[in-house]
Amino acid sequence: MRKPTITLLTDFGMKDHYVASMKGVILSINPQCNLIDITHQVSPQNIQEGAFILANSYSSFPKGTIHLSVVDPGVGGIRKPILLVTQNYFFVGPDNGLFTLVAQREKVEKIIVLTQQKYFLTKLSTTFHGRDIFAPVAAHLSLGIQPNAFGDQTRAWVKVRFGKPAIEKGRLLGEVLHIDTFGNFVSNIDEKIFFRFTKERPYVIWVGKKKIHHLGKGYWEGKPGEPMALIGSSGYLEISMNKGNAQKTLKMKRGDPIQVDLKTKA
Amino acid sequence: MRKPTITLLTDFGMKDHYVASMKGVILSINPQCNLIDITHQVSPQNIQEGAFILANSYSSFPKGTIHLSVVDPGVGGIRKPILLVTQNYFFVGPDNGLFTLVAQREKVEKIIVLTQQKYFLTKLSTTFHGRDIFAPVAAHLSLGIQPNAFGDQTRAWVKVRFGKPAIEKGRLLGEVLHIDTFGNFVSNIDEKIFFRFTKERPYVIWVGKKKIHHLGKGYWEGKPGEPMALIGSSGYLEISMNKGNAQKTLKMKRGDPIQVDLKTKA
Amino acid sequence: MRKPTITLLTDFGMKDHYVASMKGVILSINPQCNLIDITHQVSPQNIQEGAFILANSYSSFPKGTIHLSVVDPGVGGIRKPILLVTQNYFFVGPDNGLFTLVAQREKVEKIIVLTQQKYFLTKLSTTFHGRDIFAPVAAHLSLGIQPNAFGDQTRAWVKVRFGKPAIEKGRLLGEVLHIDTFGNFVSNIDEKIFFRFTKERPYVIWVGKKKIHHLGKGYWEGKPGEPMALIGSSGYLEISMNKGNAQKTLKMKRGDPIQVDLKTKA
Repeated sequence: MRKPTITLLTDFGMKDHYVASMKGVILSINPQCNLIDITHQVSPQNIQEGAFILANSYSSFPKGTIHLSVVDPGVGGIRKPILLVTQNYFFVGPDNGLFTLVAQREKVEKIIVLTQQKYFLTKLSTTFHGRDIFAPVAAHLSLGIQPNAFGDQTRAWVKVRFGKPAIEKGRLLGEVLHIDTFGNFVSNIDEKIFFRFTKERPYVIWVGKKKIHHLGKGYWEGKPGEPMALIGSSGYLEISMNKGNAQKTLKMKRGDPIQVDLKTKA
Repeated sequence: MRKPTITLLTDFGMKDHYVASMKGVILSINPQCNLIDITHQVSPQNIQEGAFILANSYSSFPKGTIHLSVVDPGVGGIRKPILLVTQNYFFVGPDNGLFTLVAQREKVEKIIVLTQQKYFLTKLSTTFHGRDIFAPVAAHLSLGIQPNAFGDQTRAWVKVRFGKPAIEKGRLLGEVLHIDTFGNFVSNIDEKIFFRFTKERPYVIWVGKKKIHHLGKGYWEGKPGEPMALIGSSGYLEISMNKGNAQKTLKMKRGDPIQVDLKTKA
Repeated sequence: MRKPTITLLTDFGMKDHYVASMKGVILSINPQCNLIDITHQVSPQNIQEGAFILANSYSSFPKGTIHLSVVDPGVGGIRKPILLVTQNYFFVGPDNGLFTLVAQREKVEKIIVLTQQKYFLTKLSTTFHGRDIFAPVAAHLSLGIQPNAFGDQTRAWVKVRFGKPAIEKGRLLGEVLHIDTFGNFVSNIDEKIFFRFTKERPYVIWVGKKKIHHLGKGYWEGKPGEPMALIGSSGYLEISMNKGNAQKTLKMKRGDPIQVDLKTKA
């Protein structure tokens, strides 16, 4: 019998007891669970960042994995707790847009609003639904309880906006979607859009005032201290710096523009 | 057969090899153990902080869980290594007060001084009893070795002081017990004391020079940038800031006063 | 049947999806694996630091453990992916010196260059071999695939330089090998060399301009604010500060000298 895996993604950090409390609750319900941290260092209350990290990791896990994701600035308020069932995975968390990107990539089968209190902890706080609602629901789900048992289906659910790349006046206009631990800028321009736009024609990638003239094959190609571009491991156009940290040098932030221009003949 | 869970709480951080060495030692003795991190980011040598985080997480875990806790500024000196057995759990660590709060909440059955060297690593360092004494004892315990096998019982053990809330001249005087990752101030005033003192009468909560006039139901009620009060998920009066960080704004620290005054009729 | 353990050591940090992606890949291949983090906080691209942390933790784990180690500044370039098989363990990672110290301590049986693509992910990125090559190889290894199946043996592999202590003009010249989370300086002078040099004669340990005249037995012996010396838990001469942080006070860095002089009779 295969042990079910539950992943955890939160903005709780690892210093406090919050993550451990969730894990304890899960193991008290299903001691056979395999608990894997995705991250607990989502920037506080940053739903988009959580959505991005989840979207880039969930599909590496075995089919049937339960992804428990809690970035929840509206905890205790009117936002609903939900279970999103896709063809391959389960996602449990607040209905605030955290699953926006996942739903663009996975076939969503149903969305359940979590209302059946028998699957929650007995005493609910208004500030820690990760422990009181989401963890016990994920644990019961891992025991084989059917999704429909947790509440009714809904079709209305919340999405957050992610800037999409656009083509205007012959320019491909993108933006910084994520800045990773190494200071790499991950743009919102995926490889399909990039190559469909450039079509083997010469181009310039603008990163602030810096120009980059071609894609590298790997970090090792970049000159130290100079920004380089490549298609990163998640399939997006990425700006990086060999033996350095692009973010520290270029000081760009999430949402800043990354543009591709076709070179015009002189 | 249920896999025993061992939790780990230390001030070792996650950068060095210290935590991994402890886990390796445990798995070498009992490969079936389920290892769960509570935290390794207790502020260095801060026994009170460790005690607080442990007290807020241990009881979420299944009965029989072994809590291995090492914040140990006196390692290698005269402080004793102990095993505290409560009705529901086991606690292994240094006798320096780390279990003070746990012992206020759990029924303590016995306290064993760890002296039986056959359950330690063969070569003892004077600086890393986490690896050499506490980890192997926890691992042997998880194999079903009886507590009495590890040493003799004691009744004398160390507690650390935690400021308790007091009522003086009609004021409820508390203090900041913990500052969490989100910058929330957790006070030492628990909900029972708070409501017994206020008895539905109007009150003012003083946080530094700021006044708060009522408890919120959840973070979402707070005005951005303004401190708010609520009963937090651990059952204590907590000062928070919706979409902000109370600690960064108010610059208070552990031990600073949080007071509740009853409003007098004019 | 014993569950195989795979440890992970990287410089990926815990904020991004990188570590979780590797774990997902492993569990998709072998759901029975026990995954244990050594650290993900190796300083970015610091092969020597990774080598030191790995060398100080690998041997605590059960025989047969697979150590998956990825600090990989040359990812996607000409450096080879390798599997190092020692008498007791397996090490999977880039051939860039990360296993230098391990190979000084373990009997190396063979080194395999990973070339059999059927054990890699189908689509290889040029920037994330941790996910695409090293994780799936470690997972297949944990299923019992024989080392030789992954590629051909080699005898040529990369080592990095670690300063070795030297004796010159009656002085034992060492250096700072590692600075740990507590600010302790771990030198490259191991206890055998130290005692063979000092032979119970009086000595002075120079740490910058500070002099230390004897070894302490444990941290508790040190005067607060004053540096002290002891043999640390890894068996090296270590400079520490009781109730303080030697690094913050002395501001030394990796590679700075730590010297032992014999006292001459006046």
